[in-house]
Amino acid sequence: MEHIEKYIEENKERFLEELFGLLRIPSISSQTANKPDMYVAAEYWKQLLLNAGADKAEIFETEGNPVVYGEKIIDPSKPTVLIYGHMDVMPVDPLNLWTSPPFEPEIRDGKIWARGAEDNKGQSFMHAKAFELMVRTNTLPCNVKFMVEGEEEVGSPNLGLWCEQHRELLKADIILVSDTSMIAPDMPSITTGLRGLAYWQVEVTGASRDLHSGLFGGAVANPINVLAKMIAQMTDEQGKITIPGFYDDVIEISSEERELLAQAPFNLDNYKKSLDIDEVAGEEGYTTTERTGIRPSFDVCGIWGGYMGEGAKTVMPSKAFAKISCRLVPNQKHEQIAILFKEHFESIAPKTVKVEVTSLHGGQGYGCPIDLPAYRAAEKAYFDTYGKRPVPVRSGGSIPIISTFEQVLSIKSILMGFGLESDAIHSPNENFALEQFYNGIRTIPLFYKYFAEI
Amino acid sequence: MEHIEKYIEENKERFLEELFGLLRIPSISSQTANKPDMYVAAEYWKQLLLNAGADKAEIFETEGNPVVYGEKIIDPSKPTVLIYGHMDVMPVDPLNLWTSPPFEPEIRDGKIWARGAEDNKGQSFMHAKAFELMVRTNTLPCNVKFMVEGEEEVGSPNLGLWCEQHRELLKADIILVSDTSMIAPDMPSITTGLRGLAYWQVEVTGASRDLHSGLFGGAVANPINVLAKMIAQMTDEQGKITIPGFYDDVIEISSEERELLAQAPFNLDNYKKSLDIDEVAGEEGYTTTERTGIRPSFDVCGIWGGYMGEGAKTVMPSKAFAKISCRLVPNQKHEQIAILFKEHFESIAPKTVKVEVTSLHGGQGYGCPIDLPAYRAAEKAYFDTYGKRPVPVRSGGSIPIISTFEQVLSIKSILMGFGLESDAIHSPNENFALEQFYNGIRTIPLFYKYFAEI
Repeated sequence: MEHIEKYIEENKERFLEELFGLLRIPSISSQTANKPDMYVAAEYWKQLLLNAGADKAEIFETEGNPVVYGEKIIDPSKPTVLIYGHMDVMPVDPLNLWTSPPFEPEIRDGKIWARGAEDNKGQSFMHAKAFELMVRTNTLPCNVKFMVEGEEEVGSPNLGLWCEQHRELLKADIILVSDTSMIAPDMPSITTGLRGLAYWQVEVTGASRDLHSGLFGGAVANPINVLAKMIAQMTDEQGKITIPGFYDDVIEISSEERELLAQAPFNLDNYKKSLDIDEVAGEEGYTTTERTGIRPSFDVCGIWGGYMGEGAKTVMPSKAFAKISCRLVPNQKHEQIAILFKEHFESIAPKTVKVEVTSLHGGQGYGCPIDLPAYRAAEKAYFDTYGKRPVPVRSGGSIPIISTFEQVLSIKSILMGFGLESDAIHSPNENFALEQFYNGIRTIPLFYKYFAEI
Repeated sequence: MEHIEKYIEENKERFLEELFGLLRIPSISSQTANKPDMYVAAEYWKQLLLNAGADKAEIFETEGNPVVYGEKIIDPSKPTVLIYGHMDVMPVDPLNLWTSPPFEPEIRDGKIWARGAEDNKGQSFMHAKAFELMVRTNTLPCNVKFMVEGEEEVGSPNLGLWCEQHRELLKADIILVSDTSMIAPDMPSITTGLRGLAYWQVEVTGASRDLHSGLFGGAVANPINVLAKMIAQMTDEQGKITIPGFYDDVIEISSEERELLAQAPFNLDNYKKSLDIDEVAGEEGYTTTERTGIRPSFDVCGIWGGYMGEGAKTVMPSKAFAKISCRLVPNQKHEQIAILFKEHFESIAPKTVKVEVTSLHGGQGYGCPIDLPAYRAAEKAYFDTYGKRPVPVRSGGSIPIISTFEQVLSIKSILMGFGLESDAIHSPNENFALEQFYNGIRTIPLFYKYFAEI
């Protein structure tokens, strides 16, 4: 595939410059203050697609952030690939832990450093450049559609409806998404499963005002003490989640599939070393890979209440808060889990406090059969780039919109990710290896080629 | 006592103006940014004492914030009263809950509203004005010394040493302190017991960086989940603190003394209504008054970790923090409790996390016998102002320095407080009733009179 190598070599610097322009836009979707930035990002994407050779590109409004749509139809009888990506990014706090500012991308140690460098600006940008490459080298074998949204990091609350409203526009044979990672640079993998998600904010109120901990301590419920006890009760000694009915829809996978999953290389010592932990933790009876791949989880993502400043303040706060999420496995219904959690959490609240549970968002899990023709095409593309057949893996992460696509558009998605575990997505110092970035641009045209040949 | 009434009537507006000047100084001792304000407050106090008629007044440096000392020696053969107060105040967050800005004092509904209006600027200021009154009306019957510090709200870390270094200067027959409250405006009371305090910050660390809750959730310890479980374990179902040895020095009081304490009026319905709670909470087998008066308590004063912003962020934080305090009863040794807590908290930490416990401060409890002559003088003074004999009560609060005074200076303290439960000290909308403020200025000279007559 000489034309691919040649085009990348001739344009690699420009690719980076263009990506950096996108990375400089602080398009954080969970913060309303950054809403205008989403329009800047949308305009940037529109121009990217037009410059790459799209017949048309358009910014669509939704109830929330805009969606960028673009397409190039070369021949209606040929297969159509729909690319999905997102231009929004996660918040950046704690800011003081970043080595370089999150929205001032730079290259260090062979990596791009910035918020969104990988998730998902970097990875979705690879598709824009792969598309450009195929157009400019006259090798585009399929019709192409792009759909780039601005609310993935807050659970894509509006994209499902937008898809429903644009079913005809979005007609395609396969959805191609690079928003996942590979096992290692020398061990390509394709994600065949995604966990679902349910996410709540809880608020525990004691007295209607903050109290002096001396005058009231010991006689009035302290909402932090109570919240801690409530959270503690949500999981048991075996690491099982105690919400009644929580596991009802969890399908226990066969010992055969567990053996297959266990073939993915995993070194516990390296894993612990990379995280700087002495011991892993989790549900009894499952390996670390299984705990994130095939089992649901319960995590407090944030907690706050009372005095958080310097020194000591002897106060009993009026309120304590937590952000709580459960990762779900494919057969669990997130709407039902949201209700079960709320009912249970409220039921274990002592009468000494008031509890409010707000569901913030949720998404279904997703599964992709490895005998799907598009999956086979992806396998071949990776093989050409990496010299190895990719391993199918189940990811612990959630891309709630992927199952929505299946429900609304009846199109399967191929999760062709090029990220690495060390990319620190959602964390300070997010990064994306240059090698992976260019390998993505290399591999994507090969997928189109093999997919068109099916 | 006509001269008292006359002097107050003629000067009441000026008293308020001068107090407001003091209240406008944001002398928050737990925030280093406010350190310069402490010097402004110290200078203000020095001038207050000189203007009131002190022979001398001086600002003493310590390792921390300054101490203001002033005195008027009328006759070395007469008894000496040493006034203790503090010019530092608590932090003011959450600021949005204040009706009027904390450092812009104003009068509403017969009350002074400001941070420090009661604790302790308002109450200590009464002593300056009572002193002025006695000087100006030629009725001062004792020698007077003032000691006003700037670190009470952070546990008076330097005043103990300063007292040791100035034993001669501070020689006195009794220490008089107004830093407590009365049961009600029509139910005067004198505090005869104070709880001690131990206060820690704890830090729980999981992985060395924030993690994506999808990719790692369920397989790596989440420090918030762990911290919640650890806090939950610190108290049992009966509301008892589970630290081994914690109760070893707690003296169970006699049923006779419990009956005496029970005579203080207490209406559970009103108590619950005033706090807007459905049920009280606390150690089984004790009344609400006993829970704060004669029993130790365990409170998380602050907790934080992970994402605390708007919306949802699916993160497993690297660290979670809490500020934890125990109120202690007089016979418990705070230094020993600090060690017991640290040992126990570290011992219950799972191997999946690292735990760090930092002791932030502590103080001993205090007890005052009701047959002390100075206590009798205070009783009479209250009777004259309120027409009722004050009730002796044990407060749940801590003034750690009071027991230090006893240890270092061998002087007992009389806790002649004029605050009310509704003053919201340490909380937003701190206030001090004008009636109580003037009653304080009225009552203090009577104490001097009766104390001199003993």
